[in-house]
Amino acid sequence: MARGESDSDGKSLGDRLASTRAMTLALAAPLSDADAAIQPHPDASPAKWHLAHTTWFFETFILRDHVPGYRLHDERWAYLFNSYYEGEGERHARPRRGMLSRPSLDSVREWRSEVDEALQRALPNLPAGALKLVELGIHHEQQHQELFLTDILATFAENPLEPAYDSLDRSPGAKAEKLAWIDGREGMVEIGAPDGGFAFDCERPRHQALLHPHRIASRCVTNGEWQQFIDDGGYRAPTLWLSDGWDWLTRENVTSPLYWHGDGRQFTLAGRRAIDADAPVAHVGYYEADAFARWAGARLPTEYEWEAAFGTFESGQGHQLDRAGAVLPEAGGGPFGDVWQWTQSAFLPYPGFKPEEGTVGEYNGKFMSGQMVLKGASCATPRGHSRASYRNFFPPPSRWQFTGVRLAQDA
Amino acid sequence: MARGESDSDGKSLGDRLASTRAMTLALAAPLSDADAAIQPHPDASPAKWHLAHTTWFFETFILRDHVPGYRLHDERWAYLFNSYYEGEGERHARPRRGMLSRPSLDSVREWRSEVDEALQRALPNLPAGALKLVELGIHHEQQHQELFLTDILATFAENPLEPAYDSLDRSPGAKAEKLAWIDGREGMVEIGAPDGGFAFDCERPRHQALLHPHRIASRCVTNGEWQQFIDDGGYRAPTLWLSDGWDWLTRENVTSPLYWHGDGRQFTLAGRRAIDADAPVAHVGYYEADAFARWAGARLPTEYEWEAAFGTFESGQGHQLDRAGAVLPEAGGGPFGDVWQWTQSAFLPYPGFKPEEGTVGEYNGKFMSGQMVLKGASCATPRGHSRASYRNFFPPPSRWQFTGVRLAQDA
Amino acid sequence: MARGESDSDGKSLGDRLASTRAMTLALAAPLSDADAAIQPHPDASPAKWHLAHTTWFFETFILRDHVPGYRLHDERWAYLFNSYYEGEGERHARPRRGMLSRPSLDSVREWRSEVDEALQRALPNLPAGALKLVELGIHHEQQHQELFLTDILATFAENPLEPAYDSLDRSPGAKAEKLAWIDGREGMVEIGAPDGGFAFDCERPRHQALLHPHRIASRCVTNGEWQQFIDDGGYRAPTLWLSDGWDWLTRENVTSPLYWHGDGRQFTLAGRRAIDADAPVAHVGYYEADAFARWAGARLPTEYEWEAAFGTFESGQGHQLDRAGAVLPEAGGGPFGDVWQWTQSAFLPYPGFKPEEGTVGEYNGKFMSGQMVLKGASCATPRGHSRASYRNFFPPPSRWQFTGVRLAQDA
Amino acid sequence: MARGESDSDGKSLGDRLASTRAMTLALAAPLSDADAAIQPHPDASPAKWHLAHTTWFFETFILRDHVPGYRLHDERWAYLFNSYYEGEGERHARPRRGMLSRPSLDSVREWRSEVDEALQRALPNLPAGALKLVELGIHHEQQHQELFLTDILATFAENPLEPAYDSLDRSPGAKAEKLAWIDGREGMVEIGAPDGGFAFDCERPRHQALLHPHRIASRCVTNGEWQQFIDDGGYRAPTLWLSDGWDWLTRENVTSPLYWHGDGRQFTLAGRRAIDADAPVAHVGYYEADAFARWAGARLPTEYEWEAAFGTFESGQGHQLDRAGAVLPEAGGGPFGDVWQWTQSAFLPYPGFKPEEGTVGEYNGKFMSGQMVLKGASCATPRGHSRASYRNFFPPPSRWQFTGVRLAQDA
Repeated sequence: MARGESDSDGKSLGDRLASTRAMTLALAAPLSDADAAIQPHPDASPAKWHLAHTTWFFETFILRDHVPGYRLHDERWAYLFNSYYEGEGERHARPRRGMLSRPSLDSVREWRSEVDEALQRALPNLPAGALKLVELGIHHEQQHQELFLTDILATFAENPLEPAYDSLDRSPGAKAEKLAWIDGREGMVEIGAPDGGFAFDCERPRHQALLHPHRIASRCVTNGEWQQFIDDGGYRAPTLWLSDGWDWLTRENVTSPLYWHGDGRQFTLAGRRAIDADAPVAHVGYYEADAFARWAGARLPTEYEWEAAFGTFESGQGHQLDRAGAVLPEAGGGPFGDVWQWTQSAFLPYPGFKPEEGTVGEYNGKFMSGQMVLKGASCATPRGHSRASYRNFFPPPSRWQFTGVRLAQDA
Repeated sequence: MARGESDSDGKSLGDRLASTRAMTLALAAPLSDADAAIQPHPDASPAKWHLAHTTWFFETFILRDHVPGYRLHDERWAYLFNSYYEGEGERHARPRRGMLSRPSLDSVREWRSEVDEALQRALPNLPAGALKLVELGIHHEQQHQELFLTDILATFAENPLEPAYDSLDRSPGAKAEKLAWIDGREGMVEIGAPDGGFAFDCERPRHQALLHPHRIASRCVTNGEWQQFIDDGGYRAPTLWLSDGWDWLTRENVTSPLYWHGDGRQFTLAGRRAIDADAPVAHVGYYEADAFARWAGARLPTEYEWEAAFGTFESGQGHQLDRAGAVLPEAGGGPFGDVWQWTQSAFLPYPGFKPEEGTVGEYNGKFMSGQMVLKGASCATPRGHSRASYRNFFPPPSRWQFTGVRLAQDA
Repeated sequence: MARGESDSDGKSLGDRLASTRAMTLALAAPLSDADAAIQPHPDASPAKWHLAHTTWFFETFILRDHVPGYRLHDERWAYLFNSYYEGEGERHARPRRGMLSRPSLDSVREWRSEVDEALQRALPNLPAGALKLVELGIHHEQQHQELFLTDILATFAENPLEPAYDSLDRSPGAKAEKLAWIDGREGMVEIGAPDGGFAFDCERPRHQALLHPHRIASRCVTNGEWQQFIDDGGYRAPTLWLSDGWDWLTRENVTSPLYWHGDGRQFTLAGRRAIDADAPVAHVGYYEADAFARWAGARLPTEYEWEAAFGTFESGQGHQLDRAGAVLPEAGGGPFGDVWQWTQSAFLPYPGFKPEEGTVGEYNGKFMSGQMVLKGASCATPRGHSRASYRNFFPPPSRWQFTGVRLAQDA
Repeated sequence: MARGESDSDGKSLGDRLASTRAMTLALAAPLSDADAAIQPHPDASPAKWHLAHTTWFFETFILRDHVPGYRLHDERWAYLFNSYYEGEGERHARPRRGMLSRPSLDSVREWRSEVDEALQRALPNLPAGALKLVELGIHHEQQHQELFLTDILATFAENPLEPAYDSLDRSPGAKAEKLAWIDGREGMVEIGAPDGGFAFDCERPRHQALLHPHRIASRCVTNGEWQQFIDDGGYRAPTLWLSDGWDWLTRENVTSPLYWHGDGRQFTLAGRRAIDADAPVAHVGYYEADAFARWAGARLPTEYEWEAAFGTFESGQGHQLDRAGAVLPEAGGGPFGDVWQWTQSAFLPYPGFKPEEGTVGEYNGKFMSGQMVLKGASCATPRGHSRASYRNFFPPPSRWQFTGVRLAQDA
C-alpha cells in the first residue's frame, strides 16, 4: 500500500503506524519496571523485550536501511533485541531475556518515542520497498501485542500473590449457543491470501485445495464441556491421547487447562476468577485438543476445512483486542475471536511457497517444522489483524496462548 | 486373505508366516547373547527384544485370544515385550530394554519355536478375524526385521572395536545415473491403498488428492553430492536450516551424515568402508534433507507427489532385503529400495482415517504427531513388504534408519 | 548481649540494628526496580529478595513471636521470603525467586521501614531470648549484605551492556608483597569461638585440635600468579585436578576465573576493568584452588591451620565493606579481607556441635554436606562481621563469591 | 613384599596372585555373556568390564612396563578397559561401558588366562618396583571383586524377572545382640597404616589424631530398627535431613533402603527374600545414615573414632567373602564384615599424604572431593582385604554397595 493510500478503515499508513505503536505503549501502561523485565518461561518474553524488539524491527529495517544518515540510538541494543534473524548477526540467547534490567522500561519508552518520530519524519520519502516493510512492521507489532498479553499473563501467573494486570468489569457472560454441525464445503476450494493487500508470506500463494465430506462445529468447545471431559477421566485415559501427548501429560503432570485451579477458578489477566462454563475453553494445547476430540467422537478440522467454512465471515468481528486492558474469552463471539482454534494441519509450506526476500524472510518459513496451524483469532488479537487466511502456529504442548478447540467430523 | 489363499507369490499364509519367522531368526544368527541384549539408544531396541516382541504379538493376539486352552509360555514376559499397547497393560520402560540379560537369546529362540509350532497348528482353525491378525503380524514382523538391522548397526557403531555384523563382498558399485527432473502428475490423483489386500490402517482410505505443478528427481541424492554440500559449508550456514534443525545441529554438533568418519569412510553392517560417491546418501535426518534441498534450490516432495510419481512402479523391485546379512545402499536401484526418502509431509491421518479396531489399533494413529512421512523402501526392507501407498514415519532428527533424499521442485 | 550493653565499638544493640538495616538499604540505593528483581542463577537471589528475606527474619522471629498483638504486614509474604526454614512451612521455590516483580522494591522498602520502627519500639521490652535472636538477625543480615553485592555482580554480569553498580575511583593499587612461608603452629591448639560474644552455632564448641608440621603463605595468590598458571596450561592438564573438578571444568568449559574476559580485563561492580596483577585472585572455586595448589607444589591449608595462624590477628582489619558501593580485592590487605580463602576442610560439625534451638537452628547444621570451609573475609564482608573462628562454606564449584587462595605446605 | 616371602597366611605372592585371579573368574561363573555385558547405571560397571579392567591393570603396569618383548593381546583394548588413568591416555566413556558386547565374555576369559600365565612366568624376574605393583594389582582386583557383586546385584535388580545370581541356603540367622554403647578412646591416638605391609596411599602416613569424649555403638543398626525409622515417618520429616539429603530424597522419591520392596522383602543376590529384622541394614546412603542417626538422638562416628575403637580387632574376622556366591549381611558379625559403615568424615588427605608415584598414583587422591569415608568391611569384601586403616569412600547418595550404619554419641 502506498503511503498516501488508506486502508479499509480509511486510515493512512502513517496513522496506522502511529495507532499501532500507541497501542503497544498503552498495553505497557500498568506495568512496573520489574513487571516488564521478567521472562516467565523460555518460550515467553519480557514485556519490555516486546516493546524493544518491535522498535528494533523498525529502526533496523526502515531507519537504518532506508534513511540516509540515520544513527542508531544504541548500537549494542541490536544484539539484545534481535529475536532470531540470522541475517542480522549474533544475538542474546532467548532463554536469557529475563536477565536484562537495563535498558530500563523508561529508556525503552524513550527509544520508542525517538524511533516513532524518525519514522513519521521519514515516511513521506520512503521508497515503495520500505513502505512494504513498514506495513510488515505494523503487522509484526500486532503479533507482539498479543504475545505481550499472554506473556504478562504467564508472568503474573508465576507470582504466588497473583497480581491482576487490570480489572475486568463485565456483565454476566452470554450463554453458549447450542452446538450445531455445519456441513462443510466439499471438492475444490480456493485457499490462502489473494494477491494485493497485506498477508504474511506463509499465507500465499493462494491455491486450490480439495476438501472431503465433513462437518464443522458451529462454535468452540466450552469450559463446561471441558469439565465433563475432566470428570470423565479424560486426562487419565491413555488411549484417548497421541503417544507424544501422553508422554507430555505424564511428564508434566497435567490434569486441566493451564491456569485452572482446583477451586473452580482460573487465573486471568484480571486475577483469579470463577470459570465461566459457557465461555470457550482456552489455554489448552494441541495434545489436549486432539484427545478431547477423540473423546467426543470427533476430530479437529484441517486448516483448509476451517478456512473454507469461515472464509466469508467478517474477520474483523468477534471478541478481539480493541483497547489495552484485561481480556478473557466469552461465549457468543463467532469464529474470529476469543480463542485460536487448533487444526489437525501441520504448519508446512503452501504449494509454491516463497519466503519474503531478505532478512525479513526469516519469519515464517524457518518455523515450518514441529508446529500445528491454528485458525481464527483470540480475545488478545488486535482488531484488524485477523484474516481468514491467517495461519497462526505453535508446537503441540504450547498452552500459554488463548488457544481452544473447534470440532469437526467426517461426513 | 483366507488361510487357503495364496498371495501374488503363490504362497499360502502359513508359508509366508513360516518364512517371515525364519528370516528373523536368520537375522539373529551372527549375534552373540550379549550382542542381542544391548540397546544403543532409547529409540532403538536390542535385537533380542525384536525377536521377543514379534513373538509376543502372535502369542497375545492370536494364541491367547483365539486358541482355546492356550497357556502363555511365561506370563511375566508380556510385561517385558509389550512395546506400547496401553490396552495390554503396564510394560517395561522403553529406555530400559537394554537391562534384560534374561531371558537369554536362546530362551527367546525356544519361545519363538514353541509359538511358531502352536501357530501353524492353530492356523487351519482360526476365524477370519484372527487370520487378518496373522497377516498383520507378518507385516509387523517385517517392520521389525528392518529395525533389527538398523538397531544392530547402531549397536556395533557404539563399540570402538567396530565389529562387523557380516561381511559384504560386492563387485564395484554401479555409477549413479545422471539426475533428471521428471514432470510430476498434476490435478486430481488417487492416493492410498485400495480396498482388498493388506495395508496398514494409516494408508487408507484411498482418496483423491490434488497435485500442483511440480517436478521430481529421477534418483536420490548421492553421497558425492552430499559431500559437495558439506564442502560448501552446508552444515555451517544457519539460513539453510529450519530453526529447529539449526538448534539440533548446534546442540548435537552434527557435521555429516551419521556413521561417516572424517577419513572418507563410513561405518556399515560390514564394518568401516569407503564411502561410495555414487550410492544414495543414507542416515540423514529430515532437518538435513530439508537443508540440502534448500541449498540445492529445490525442495522435498510431498508424500502425494511421490506416490503419484512412482505408484505404477513395481514396488517389489529395487535393492531390498532378500536374505539375512549385511546391506548397504548402492546406485541404480529405483524408487523402492536403498533408502527411504523423506517427504515434506507430516504424518497425519488421511481424510476418513479409522484406526484398526481393538488393541492392535494402537499402531499408527497414536504416532500422528511430530513425525514426517518417508516413502519408498530401503536396502533393509524385506522384499515383499513395500508398497507405493506405504507411509513410513520418523521424527525429524532420526538418522539411524536408512533414510535419504529425493528432491522435487515447483514447476 | 543485653539491650543496654554496648559492644566493642561502644554501640548499643539498637544502634547496631539500625546501622545494619541502614547499610542494606544503602546497598540497594543504586538499583532500579528491575535490577532488584532479577535472579541471575539458581544459587543467587534477587537484591529485592535479600531486602525482604532479612526483614522476614526479624518480623517472624522477633515481632511475630515476641511482640504481643503484632500483625504481619502481609501474611502471604512469609511464603515468598522464607529461605529454607522447614519449621516455617512451605515456601516459594528457590530457583523461581526471579519471578517476583511484586511486591515492588518500593513496597519492600516500606515494609522494611515499618518493621524497623516496630523493632526499635519493641527492643526495650524484649526478653533475653529475643535479644539473642536480634543479635542473630543482625549477623544474618550482614551475611546477606555480602550476598547482595555478589548477587548483583552476577546479575549485571549477565547483561551484555555490562552495567556498573557503582563507580570506583581508586589510586593505583598497592604492590603485592613477596610471598613468605610462615611456620605454622604445631601440636595442640584451641579452635572455635569462645563462650560469650556472638558466634554462629557451627563455630562452637571451642575445642582442642591437633596440628601437624606445616607452613602457611603470608599472602594470597595474586592475579598475576594465576595468569602464570593459565599460561602454563593449568586449565588443560587433567592430572592437576580432582576428578570431579576435571569433569566440572570440561562440562562448563572453564578456562579462567569467573568474570575474566580474554582481553586482560574482568567484569566488576564498577564495570569492566583491567585485571590488577598484584591483587589477590578472586572468583575461583575450590576445584581451581586445589589444582592451582598442586601446580604450585603446595596444598590448601586446613581450617585449623588457618585459624591457628591468624587467630591473633585483628579480624576487623583488612579490606572489608565499610560503606555501600563497589568493592574489589586489592593487594596488601592481610588475612581478613579482599577474598575468602578456600581450605581443604569439609564443612562438618565440630566435636560436640549442637545446632541452635528452634527453627533458627536450621541454619548451618543442615548444610554440613558437600561444602568446603573458607576462612578470612572479603572486600564485600561488612566490617565487624568477621572473626577468626568464622566458618564460611560453599560447594566446590561456586565462584560467584569473592573467593581466593592462600597456600600451605607440609613442613 | 619380595617374591619369595610369604604373607601372614603363609602364601607367596605368586600364590596370592593366582588365588585372587581365580576368585574373580569364579565370581563370573554363573553369568551369561549378556549378564556380564550390562551396565545397570553409570556408577556401576558390567561384570565383564571388571574382568577385563583388572587384567588390563596387570598387562599394562607389569607386563608392558616390566617384561621386555611382551606384546599386548590387543592394543585397542587399553582404550576400552582403562578406567580413569589420565596418564594412560584417552578411554571409553564410563557411562557407555554397557555398549560393549565385544570382546565377548569368553574372549576376556581367554585374555585373562594368557595374562595370568605371562604374569606367573614373569614373576621370578620382576624388579622390586614391579612386585609392589603386583601387590597393588592384587588389592585392586579384590576391590573389583566387591564391585563385581554389587554391580551384578544392581544388574539383576533392573530385570523385572528378578533373576538370582546364586542360591543361598542359610540356617535361620542369628539374633541381633542388644545394642551397647562403648566408651570411645579419648585424647591422642595413632591413626593410619603403619609402614611396611600393604596399604593404599590414602591410609598413610600414620599420624596422631585427637579424639574427643564419645561413645560408639557395639553393633550396626538393624533392619528392624530401620523399619521403626520408616514407621515413625523418618523419610517424611525434613528437619531430620541434611538439606542436600532432603533434595535428593524428594527428587528420587526415596522411601526405604534400596532393594526393599513394599512386601516385607528385599531383592538380593539370591532373589527376593524376606527382610531379616536382626541383620544389619544395608544399601542405605550417607544422607539416610545421617538422618537415621539424628532421629535416634545420636550421630555417625568420625573415621578416627571408628579406627580407634576397632583397630585392635582382628580385621580378618567377620562376615566377608570367602568363596564365590551370593552374600547377604547377617547379625553377629563384628565390625569387619556385613556392611561398610558410614562415618561423618569427608574423604580428605591425611596430614603429609603423598600419592603413589606414576600413573598408579591416580588412584585415591583424585577422588578426595565430595565423598564420605566408610570403615569396616562388608559381606562382599574378599577375606584378607580388610584392615582397620582401610578407608572406603563413596558419594553421599550412593546406595548400591553394602553400606550400613553404626552410631556414635558425644560423651
